[in-house]
Amino acid sequence: MAVSRIWHRNAATQGRAVRRAEAPEAIPPHNADSLRARITIMSTPHDSNGVALVIGAGDATGGAIARRFARGGLTACVTRREADKLEPLLESIASTGGRAHGYGSDARKEDDVIALVETIERDVGPIEVLVFNIGANVPCSILEETSRKYFKIWEMACLGGFLNGREVAKRMVARGRGTILYTGATASLRGSANFAAFAGAKHALRALAQSMARELGPRGIHVGHVIVDGAIDTEFIRSNFPDRYALKAQDGILDPDHIAENYWNLHMQPRDAWTFELDVRPYMEKW
Amino acid sequence: MAVSRIWHRNAATQGRAVRRAEAPEAIPPHNADSLRARITIMSTPHDSNGVALVIGAGDATGGAIARRFARGGLTACVTRREADKLEPLLESIASTGGRAHGYGSDARKEDDVIALVETIERDVGPIEVLVFNIGANVPCSILEETSRKYFKIWEMACLGGFLNGREVAKRMVARGRGTILYTGATASLRGSANFAAFAGAKHALRALAQSMARELGPRGIHVGHVIVDGAIDTEFIRSNFPDRYALKAQDGILDPDHIAENYWNLHMQPRDAWTFELDVRPYMEKW
Amino acid sequence: MAVSRIWHRNAATQGRAVRRAEAPEAIPPHNADSLRARITIMSTPHDSNGVALVIGAGDATGGAIARRFARGGLTACVTRREADKLEPLLESIASTGGRAHGYGSDARKEDDVIALVETIERDVGPIEVLVFNIGANVPCSILEETSRKYFKIWEMACLGGFLNGREVAKRMVARGRGTILYTGATASLRGSANFAAFAGAKHALRALAQSMARELGPRGIHVGHVIVDGAIDTEFIRSNFPDRYALKAQDGILDPDHIAENYWNLHMQPRDAWTFELDVRPYMEKW
Amino acid sequence: MAVSRIWHRNAATQGRAVRRAEAPEAIPPHNADSLRARITIMSTPHDSNGVALVIGAGDATGGAIARRFARGGLTACVTRREADKLEPLLESIASTGGRAHGYGSDARKEDDVIALVETIERDVGPIEVLVFNIGANVPCSILEETSRKYFKIWEMACLGGFLNGREVAKRMVARGRGTILYTGATASLRGSANFAAFAGAKHALRALAQSMARELGPRGIHVGHVIVDGAIDTEFIRSNFPDRYALKAQDGILDPDHIAENYWNLHMQPRDAWTFELDVRPYMEKW
Repeated sequence: MAVSRIWHRNAATQGRAVRRAEAPEAIPPHNADSLRARITIMSTPHDSNGVALVIGAGDATGGAIARRFARGGLTACVTRREADKLEPLLESIASTGGRAHGYGSDARKEDDVIALVETIERDVGPIEVLVFNIGANVPCSILEETSRKYFKIWEMACLGGFLNGREVAKRMVARGRGTILYTGATASLRGSANFAAFAGAKHALRALAQSMARELGPRGIHVGHVIVDGAIDTEFIRSNFPDRYALKAQDGILDPDHIAENYWNLHMQPRDAWTFELDVRPYMEKW
Repeated sequence: MAVSRIWHRNAATQGRAVRRAEAPEAIPPHNADSLRARITIMSTPHDSNGVALVIGAGDATGGAIARRFARGGLTACVTRREADKLEPLLESIASTGGRAHGYGSDARKEDDVIALVETIERDVGPIEVLVFNIGANVPCSILEETSRKYFKIWEMACLGGFLNGREVAKRMVARGRGTILYTGATASLRGSANFAAFAGAKHALRALAQSMARELGPRGIHVGHVIVDGAIDTEFIRSNFPDRYALKAQDGILDPDHIAENYWNLHMQPRDAWTFELDVRPYMEKW
Repeated sequence: MAVSRIWHRNAATQGRAVRRAEAPEAIPPHNADSLRARITIMSTPHDSNGVALVIGAGDATGGAIARRFARGGLTACVTRREADKLEPLLESIASTGGRAHGYGSDARKEDDVIALVETIERDVGPIEVLVFNIGANVPCSILEETSRKYFKIWEMACLGGFLNGREVAKRMVARGRGTILYTGATASLRGSANFAAFAGAKHALRALAQSMARELGPRGIHVGHVIVDGAIDTEFIRSNFPDRYALKAQDGILDPDHIAENYWNLHMQPRDAWTFELDVRPYMEKW
Repeated sequence: MAVSRIWHRNAATQGRAVRRAEAPEAIPPHNADSLRARITIMSTPHDSNGVALVIGAGDATGGAIARRFARGGLTACVTRREADKLEPLLESIASTGGRAHGYGSDARKEDDVIALVETIERDVGPIEVLVFNIGANVPCSILEETSRKYFKIWEMACLGGFLNGREVAKRMVARGRGTILYTGATASLRGSANFAAFAGAKHALRALAQSMARELGPRGIHVGHVIVDGAIDTEFIRSNFPDRYALKAQDGILDPDHIAENYWNLHMQPRDAWTFELDVRPYMEKW
């Protein structure tokens, strides 16, 4: 694991006096043990609830999901490629009494993923929930799509889901419990014109989730897939699709917190009645 | 409306002293007004939460859904063809402080459905939730299926859904809000051998729900479809499939209360993030 | 079987001198034997190829399918509710050397269907192919849909498919071979706004076809479902959707003969490689 | 383009006296021009029918498809990674008077694909049909799947389909016509336990095909997807699943020639009635 790619921030320590372990002088790459000292662990009753690991904890859906699980008593471990961007999320969780750790980690790099899971399991607690929330919605005519972009979209939106899912599933299977949730999109079910790359990645991610659900369900792991169909209330939509964004006034775009509630509900389901898939969209969305 | 087919029981009055209006001496058939005096209304703060009407409130899923919505503060109005069989459900709701009314009503009879909705809207309160939960899972070789049974299965499992959905939707559209939920099954998505009639009815019901969701969503009505895949903890399974039922010890069959929780969650969704469809099955179910 | 509802026209005899049996003086209703004398049989080598029975042989798709199978050497037995309207089709088949019989028959009436199949099997030959091609595409808001129309659309587009499919399947199973093809539509897969009735019927028909395919395939019966997605070159489209019809100049609407070719191809498939479902649409159709 | 990876064999010349161009002494890598002299072109009336390029022309389905299109008058250009293995196919096509060229080419290498398409278009004729037929059906528990294999299966079964599809589509769009057909599998629609990698690749390939169909259909390119569901009559099945193979005696496994006929039929469809997707399976297959 390259040091530059995985490090952490501990939301629970923001703005409070907390004993913090010092960072080690030198950290050899590709060595998960090296992360130990950099993770600040607080002992709280919540610890027993385990960890919700959110891969791709962006400003919208991923962040909202992390907040929801933290509110539910789990320790949120959140990742983005650039850890600095996690700060507002970590602060927001800490400010409401939740626990969170941030990691700059590349979900596409096998070594990173292995180290991340090892580190969290050892230093924070058992991963009870994995949410994979990385998308890569970049349209292009099939005639102009480059192989590089076609690959990168798959790598981000699908391979990362495989790597993280497999690593976490190994731990969960040993415990006979756990929840793994994937974020889907309309493109999970439909290959629209100009969306060959994104739809391919999303279809493949859904196949992964389905295959995992069928294999791991009987072993106690709840694998689910949430199809988000519609514009989400994000800075991206606000900037690029102002007309669409204006629908927010009449609830026409998805509130990330409302999406997140469904992830929480899935995690709460008893094992005799598990949902594999559900869709969410605004009431006024065309579909 | 034939009097013999629609009458009521009021769960909230079971075992308590309650002022009850006397039944009228004579009730002309097909006259919704005639029902008024037979419905006992109690004034409670819950009234303002409106009514959850559950069509097909059997001993398992339908009953559990009614209990869940009553627990959530709505007045449960529940129906079966034979009203007597509703007693245990009404008592169970009343015993936990909930409010419920029971109606013997045939969901396939247009007059009954119209009268039922009129009566409830006038005498109990606005129907905020409709749950249609009637199935008719009777397998048969296509070579031996009778037209009578093929029709009856469709009439029960689909036509009833149309009649109740339409009547309630008319009221909800006027108010610009409401939730209509249909219970689906594996057969909603797959026409298995020997299930032509049931799968046909369930496919048609799903098409109905989808069409209603697309038309009524923009008008504020949340239409959803819950695919229940697996054996449910019922007397029927216990008697007829004891091997299957034995899986209950390891959570291998669906607990009706756990199914019901999903209906409640659907109703709780804000309108910017509505689910049309979700599935539920035991963790160990083959699918 | 009411005599008034089932009678025949024999295309092969149009405009030629042919010995024709006289109609009996009196035909008791509901008696298939009564039809015997009214069917004119010509002995030709084609007879050994058996019968293609097309239910709903309208001016467009159904007629084209009948012509295609007649061209392939089968005797086309075609039905409509009003037998008179079959004349142009029968003449067209006869004029190209094909063999055809026409029957005024109501596909929704069990007695009619039973009598029709009995009559053809006894007097014309074994039914090798059944094509069910009756639709009922009448949109309506769910709020205004009547139960009568909701039922009638299902009765036409689905119940008829069940009745004819079952009756023919009984014969085919005894012979261990045969082809049964259903005509689907976009509404077979999607419940669009304002199409609850039609989509319900078409979903149910598809479930029927799927269930039959799974049960009857191993017994040698090939059941298929053709999803026609797009406007067809019909008088109806020409009159009611002139803009759409204008696309014909650029092949933007479906030619019935081109649809029919797919039915023929399905029938030609060897049993180790059977297709259950395929879609057809114009190259320029949005989907 | 590495010389070692793309070269050709000309079926039409096998076993006959034919003027053959000599191979050049030295061929610089990554230079399509270098291939010119190695392709032997025969002038026949068939040339005007254009080329059917079959990527992944193995001993079963791909080879049968090539033979079918050669029989239909197109020049079959066929590829495998190891060109030597193409010899029996080329000989078989030549022996029946067809025309074929063989190319050792790696469908996953962008340079190879670009060079292949350039070479064929320049030296053989316009590619009228592309068939992508590479699979990679290797099951594995998600817990043990390696990232290398997960990637390779996607690379073979999906990325190759993208690269070849894009390159050929560019040419076809310029001409306003062409047919591109992808071979799917059960895993295209269902993520079974232990098939996360294969199902992912096949789902993604289907999304690619669908997206291309929607974008390129209106530009005159017919994109289709054939779902092959069942064991095919191959050496692999014969060796590894002898019980399954024994079903051949009763037509219980798919004959590659019968699969191929469907690809031909798709290519023959007029543009007002194009099929995007069809399935094929033995009559006795469970599904």
